[in-house]
Amino acid sequence: HENGNGVTDTQLKLKDFILERILNNSTNRKSVCVLGKFKDKSGVALVHLEKNAFKEEDLDSVGYFSADTELKTFFQNDIYGNYECFPPSSVNGVKTTIIYPATEKHIAKYSQQQSHIVLETPELYDKLTLPHLEKEQFNLQWVYNILEGKSEQDRVVLDNKCEKEGFVLLPDLKWDGITKETLYLLAIIRQRGIKSLRDLDESHLPLLRRIRDEGKKKILEKYGVPGSQLRIYLHYQPSFYHLHVHFTYLKHEAPGIYAEKSHLLETVIDNIEMIGNYYKKATLPFTIREMDNIFNIYETNGHV
Amino acid sequence: HENGNGVTDTQLKLKDFILERILNNSTNRKSVCVLGKFKDKSGVALVHLEKNAFKEEDLDSVGYFSADTELKTFFQNDIYGNYECFPPSSVNGVKTTIIYPATEKHIAKYSQQQSHIVLETPELYDKLTLPHLEKEQFNLQWVYNILEGKSEQDRVVLDNKCEKEGFVLLPDLKWDGITKETLYLLAIIRQRGIKSLRDLDESHLPLLRRIRDEGKKKILEKYGVPGSQLRIYLHYQPSFYHLHVHFTYLKHEAPGIYAEKSHLLETVIDNIEMIGNYYKKATLPFTIREMDNIFNIYETNGHV
Repeated sequence: HENGNGVTDTQLKLKDFILERILNNSTNRKSVCVLGKFKDKSGVALVHLEKNAFKEEDLDSVGYFSADTELKTFFQNDIYGNYECFPPSSVNGVKTTIIYPATEKHIAKYSQQQSHIVLETPELYDKLTLPHLEKEQFNLQWVYNILEGKSEQDRVVLDNKCEKEGFVLLPDLKWDGITKETLYLLAIIRQRGIKSLRDLDESHLPLLRRIRDEGKKKILEKYGVPGSQLRIYLHYQPSFYHLHVHFTYLKHEAPGIYAEKSHLLETVIDNIEMIGNYYKKATLPFTIREMDNIFNIYETNGHV
Repeated sequence: HENGNGVTDTQLKLKDFILERILNNSTNRKSVCVLGKFKDKSGVALVHLEKNAFKEEDLDSVGYFSADTELKTFFQNDIYGNYECFPPSSVNGVKTTIIYPATEKHIAKYSQQQSHIVLETPELYDKLTLPHLEKEQFNLQWVYNILEGKSEQDRVVLDNKCEKEGFVLLPDLKWDGITKETLYLLAIIRQRGIKSLRDLDESHLPLLRRIRDEGKKKILEKYGVPGSQLRIYLHYQPSFYHLHVHFTYLKHEAPGIYAEKSHLLETVIDNIEMIGNYYKKATLPFTIREMDNIFNIYETNGHV
């Protein structure tokens, strides 16, 4: 039948949802995305559930702290108690999005891959990672366009033209260039052929220190964020193999800032100061998803 | 009155909680920490609430997709529908931690504030950090209770009693001990007096390797999570100064896994293998919040 707006009423009921598979489960955001079907309906559906954030007005004697909130004790130790509570369901809703019918593109967008940590010794870098990089020849034209002034010139924040120690600083694609809370810039070096952390040694210390010092100075001037509130780091593996350094606001939980992926520039400099060829000798852990080509290479060789 | 263990039963009730102020509300993590009092009890209490992540086994016709789940429609547009759902309260619990009585230090720990990165050279560690630690020391009684078998014994997953290289592995306070998606265990060493990363040298390699190897093995056996899907790391600064190692599920975005705070155990071992006294020589960055006592010490001395 039709509802008042002349739109066919396709009232979907969660009890009719038949789960096929879980595409993504974010334990941090408390969200989950599942794929399935609705009983007696053709085509597939995506259901995305996300626990609501706490509303401050519910933290009172009729909400979370009401007699209706049940408390189950896990344990108590000294002054610490660990429980699970079950608040009245009216204050504990779940944001729900249903996409029906869903396409392959929706499914790909909401899917999460299994990840593994791999320990890349210098030998494994030479034997597996490097040949893979050379074969895949990631296209760096967009990087060269920026360096040569052919693209994104209006976005460049700092341009040090020194061929050996110069770099370009500009907002990352993920940043709107304005909101301080999500500040995210990228320093891209001018010198070509330095693929990643692995290629760095004591000859690069002046370049690295310059990126750190001039980058901090410029960001303070332009955005008012002091260096002590910046997270400055390199990814390993990086998403493209032309050396670049990330600058994010410390309070911003940017993607990829986890210990298994990010190396603070200060630590990189310190390591090289201690051992000139640190990054030629170190075992560098990195994560790979099962969908990545390099996963198959490492798995076939028995290193996952 | 007293319970069976001869411990005074201080059963706290959420309905007796009187809110004074909200210390922190993370809309990303869906957690909130509030400060208040319990009716007729002296001293202040902290209540930390965090929505549970989705358990995959609850995504079925008796859990989220049951007839008991109410669905409220916000809007529908083409293939997209936006709703709020209210699942049966039994599957929609809230992880609850109560600290009572809470100290000023607990309040500082759970409050949201400006953070800064500090670069701790070995000299600054000796001059500023170490004297501060010795003076401020968080009480370690709860750690000794676990090691001596006086508390949480039913939670212990692995107990290696070797005095020099032994450790206890148990679920972290933040983990319910069941949900694979949020797996979080802690290995606490038996040896006393090793405060943090800073105290480690080549004499500790057997201990560190044992924690890594036995921890991985046990977690695979007991929870079915292979070592390649574990993030194994130490915090610097740690929240308590008795050496411990964190084990979390790689897909779980646990708090404090950022590059400025977490050091992968594999990297720690590799660094010490390269330079025996690496952690006596290295500059270790760490973050401090403006409310932390140590912030004043570093700021007064001009190191922020």
